Amino acid sequence: MMDMWELDTPCLIIDLEVLEKNIKRMGDYCKEHNLNLRPHIKTHKIPEIAKIQVESGAVGITSAKVSEAEIMADAGIKDILIAYPVYGKQKLERLMKIAEKAEVSVAVDSEAVAEGISKKAGENGKRIGILVEADVGMHRCGWEIGEEFINAAKNIRDMPGLDLKGVMIYPGHINKGGAVHSELEKLQEDINRMYDLFNSAGIEIRVLSGGSTPSAFLSHKLKGLTEIRPGSYVYNDMNVVGWGCAGEEDCALKVLATVVSTTVKGQIIVDAGSKTMSSDSFLPKNGRGFGKIFGYENLFIKKMNEEHGYIDISTSESKFKVGDKLLVIPNHCCTTSNMHDEVYGLRDNKVELSWQITARGKIR
Amino acid sequence: MMDMWELDTPCLIIDLEVLEKNIKRMGDYCKEHNLNLRPHIKTHKIPEIAKIQVESGAVGITSAKVSEAEIMADAGIKDILIAYPVYGKQKLERLMKIAEKAEVSVAVDSEAVAEGISKKAGENGKRIGILVEADVGMHRCGWEIGEEFINAAKNIRDMPGLDLKGVMIYPGHINKGGAVHSELEKLQEDINRMYDLFNSAGIEIRVLSGGSTPSAFLSHKLKGLTEIRPGSYVYNDMNVVGWGCAGEEDCALKVLATVVSTTVKGQIIVDAGSKTMSSDSFLPKNGRGFGKIFGYENLFIKKMNEEHGYIDISTSESKFKVGDKLLVIPNHCCTTSNMHDEVYGLRDNKVELSWQITARGKIR
Repeated sequence: MMDMWELDTPCLIIDLEVLEKNIKRMGDYCKEHNLNLRPHIKTHKIPEIAKIQVESGAVGITSAKVSEAEIMADAGIKDILIAYPVYGKQKLERLMKIAEKAEVSVAVDSEAVAEGISKKAGENGKRIGILVEADVGMHRCGWEIGEEFINAAKNIRDMPGLDLKGVMIYPGHINKGGAVHSELEKLQEDINRMYDLFNSAGIEIRVLSGGSTPSAFLSHKLKGLTEIRPGSYVYNDMNVVGWGCAGEEDCALKVLATVVSTTVKGQIIVDAGSKTMSSDSFLPKNGRGFGKIFGYENLFIKKMNEEHGYIDISTSESKFKVGDKLLVIPNHCCTTSNMHDEVYGLRDNKVELSWQITARGKIR
Repeated sequence: MMDMWELDTPCLIIDLEVLEKNIKRMGDYCKEHNLNLRPHIKTHKIPEIAKIQVESGAVGITSAKVSEAEIMADAGIKDILIAYPVYGKQKLERLMKIAEKAEVSVAVDSEAVAEGISKKAGENGKRIGILVEADVGMHRCGWEIGEEFINAAKNIRDMPGLDLKGVMIYPGHINKGGAVHSELEKLQEDINRMYDLFNSAGIEIRVLSGGSTPSAFLSHKLKGLTEIRPGSYVYNDMNVVGWGCAGEEDCALKVLATVVSTTVKGQIIVDAGSKTMSSDSFLPKNGRGFGKIFGYENLFIKKMNEEHGYIDISTSESKFKVGDKLLVIPNHCCTTSNMHDEVYGLRDNKVELSWQITARGKIR
């Protein structure tokens, strides 16, 4: 088996042992607390990993786009939530094809989107699961919890071809530093109020789907939550580490990079930039750059161009020369995966397998 | 022919008339001033556009990576500069294959990289063009102009299998706002000093390669410059507009996006986020977000997630509903191209052609 250090760079590698540990930890947590696990595959975009997740107890998967769901359905995943408003002729036609292979649900936050799905499902004799999305603080999609929301939910429940299963929330703002306890209390109040309103309106919430990696291990504290949709936990990344939800040793995904220039004083350039790791910044606080050099106390990619990662070594004891190889933990594992066509799976620094990132770049 | 508005979204479109005008303008400028034009194909990553550039007078093309050069050589481009240190066994083997199809040069800023190429070229009976890189202010790669640089250039000139053609500079810091005249004077002094030093050492500078889109139309003011390597000029983008080097009407590349949510007050969500346009920020000044909505005075993507573009409409007169389609001019056309597998070429809003972005994701 090839040694990791012989791989051409830049390339993406997975420490399989860490991956397996991360998947098991989340699976065990969900079993212990009787929560359904529906991991978001946007993190890895790899059918083989989705299958490992399902085999270790996940009820199904979450995808963002119809095109990602297509790939997962083709790979044999039987229960798929598309956590995104599906709108437009082409996407609805493809949604119907997916519904022939898998049980498929869609999260909606408008009657317009629900109507489109209802009409198409009716024409095709299909029944599509629906989660109505509530905004619990992210202010991205979703209704405020209130009358308008309940009225929309009633209308959607009554649309033919749809099965209103419940509610989707995205509590990704929780446990990103700060007042976790008060945030949780506020969220629990929102959830209680929502159950009351839905009960009064005679709508059953069979599914309340939450999630996100930073808040995942707080999920058992929320009464009424039935499933979670974390994504990043399979790999972890510098953002997850920065939020205090994992250590660097829990980061399974890294970029192998080569030092290609040491000519400008106090700095080295590696061959991994924004085309390799995306330009997503470090979210927990400012000034931590664009990726951590694994195994070095204080070395970060301080700046990036598409093919250049700048590392400030002016205060480092370490010496580097052209050709040295380094491992970088990216800020954001999901957007990093999206830049690559394949990833190498390693055990003890030997290449055990390679996986195609089949759902990379699936934006529609 | 299909109407643009019928395309599934998000997708990338090119206004072919603007593309042709941009290519002609730069070609004419270079002819008028007797400068060689060697456009950087990282902007479009499309062999068909590279061929249009060469047919309209470019001497060849520039690529960042060996894998990009491979695709361009396979497409019949006969003169390629890889403006990046090529290092390592796998890349050197591929470099030799490219050298069978095209005249190929490499920019280097270390003897280590030059030695690797020399050894491999020697083994294969090839002769690879070399530009030594000087740092004229970007502080990324390149030697300071001085004795160390000249000594390295001498050593590289004497290495077998190499043809030291001259010097590469990247004056991308010029004309990004600020004191253009004094920056140009400083750069001219650097160039003069470099010619003097190389002359004294008996090394001829046959090629002095500069460029970058923001500084391109100042190139005739620099005595001694023989070629330029602009990339973005074929498309332009919000950064180029922000630097005052193009208008929005000169932007050929746009993203067609659909409004998928209007539920959160004062905001709409479009289906184009960082997976569609990259998360590259607006460089000329702060606070302009992640893309301009074409045809609307003051609408920008203010925030992005992978699949969500947030547009603040709280101060806008315009009304939007789910299903409305919008055109977005991205901040950075090069990184946007890299997110897509294909692009549609339009004339009068009708789809005239589609091109595969063959060199997308070529990071090695």
